[in-house]
Amino acid sequence: MSIIDLVRQNRSCRRFQQHQKVSAEILAGLVEVARLGPSAANRQPLKYVISNDPAVNARIFPHLGWAGYLKSWPGPGEGQRPAAYVVVLHDTAIADDVECDHGIACQGMLLAAVEQGLAGCIIASVARDRLVAELGLAPALKILLVLALGYADEERVIEPLPADGDIRYWRDRQGIHHVPKRAPEELIVARHVC
Amino acid sequence: MSIIDLVRQNRSCRRFQQHQKVSAEILAGLVEVARLGPSAANRQPLKYVISNDPAVNARIFPHLGWAGYLKSWPGPGEGQRPAAYVVVLHDTAIADDVECDHGIACQGMLLAAVEQGLAGCIIASVARDRLVAELGLAPALKILLVLALGYADEERVIEPLPADGDIRYWRDRQGIHHVPKRAPEELIVARHVC
Repeated sequence: MSIIDLVRQNRSCRRFQQHQKVSAEILAGLVEVARLGPSAANRQPLKYVISNDPAVNARIFPHLGWAGYLKSWPGPGEGQRPAAYVVVLHDTAIADDVECDHGIACQGMLLAAVEQGLAGCIIASVARDRLVAELGLAPALKILLVLALGYADEERVIEPLPADGDIRYWRDRQGIHHVPKRAPEELIVARHVC
Repeated sequence: MSIIDLVRQNRSCRRFQQHQKVSAEILAGLVEVARLGPSAANRQPLKYVISNDPAVNARIFPHLGWAGYLKSWPGPGEGQRPAAYVVVLHDTAIADDVECDHGIACQGMLLAAVEQGLAGCIIASVARDRLVAELGLAPALKILLVLALGYADEERVIEPLPADGDIRYWRDRQGIHHVPKRAPEELIVARHVC
């Protein structure tokens, strides 16, 4: 599938087929995609924890925040939780700053996941101190993001921004998740093309 | 091409076939890939300037720093400079912070560029104040990164880290650019897989 098609298909997913396993090979393959991506000054300060183990997943899940704009939704219930995680870490022994390496890594992993029929969500709302303790991470390792993964159990659609410019995603009565995206004309402020 | 193959092929490129034009359609298509990527809280605070105009490119180029580890190399000479640019901006009127949205956007654009036979380089060493003035950008727009693009005019290869762990890229006598990457075993600090 082309990149543009993968990007269109890759909408943040928050309800998964929890018991549909994501293989260890797929998870290692996602980290391989992250590993070979560009890195600021090639320092490569990112490290990773991977899990597809239901027992470990159940220890990660309580430390994650879900869908800030869906105020009345507490997050996915048992049976719809992520089947796997990649926890993205900053090894502070390597570099003080990761610049935008974690964005580069997550977009590569998400596109590779979607290519293999999976869906994912980059979660930044993480109780970091508690999850660090839960995972028993070395003191130099700080949690940046958690990539939640699995086979989707919800439908997501892109749509134009409404007239009032509200960028908040929302869920309709059928449970379909709607994601408003700004128009190209709003994004490109100058075109010097010939 | 699969994501892993695109990621392998996508090595930062710093010498281009300057006079081999990158079409306006390709540049707009790259921004489309960035537009549809995930964004922290879906705020979408990134904006873009695109250029494939040699006259504008010549005004952008002097404000870019090249290959910090190649101390004796002043950057690409006339004829090997980028054929196009996407300047990635932060619209501070939308959000105070872009989180790692610029990394997400750049990785999507790079993979889409490589898919179309191009090469690119994310440049963070930018004389931002001078380039803002040169481009006449509105005060709310801050430059985050510059994505340099074109058809490659150099060879780049990945290799394992040397025994001393030095992550600095280097160029051999044949002009081939070598990029040491950490091994998977170094990156994955815990595997909870079954």
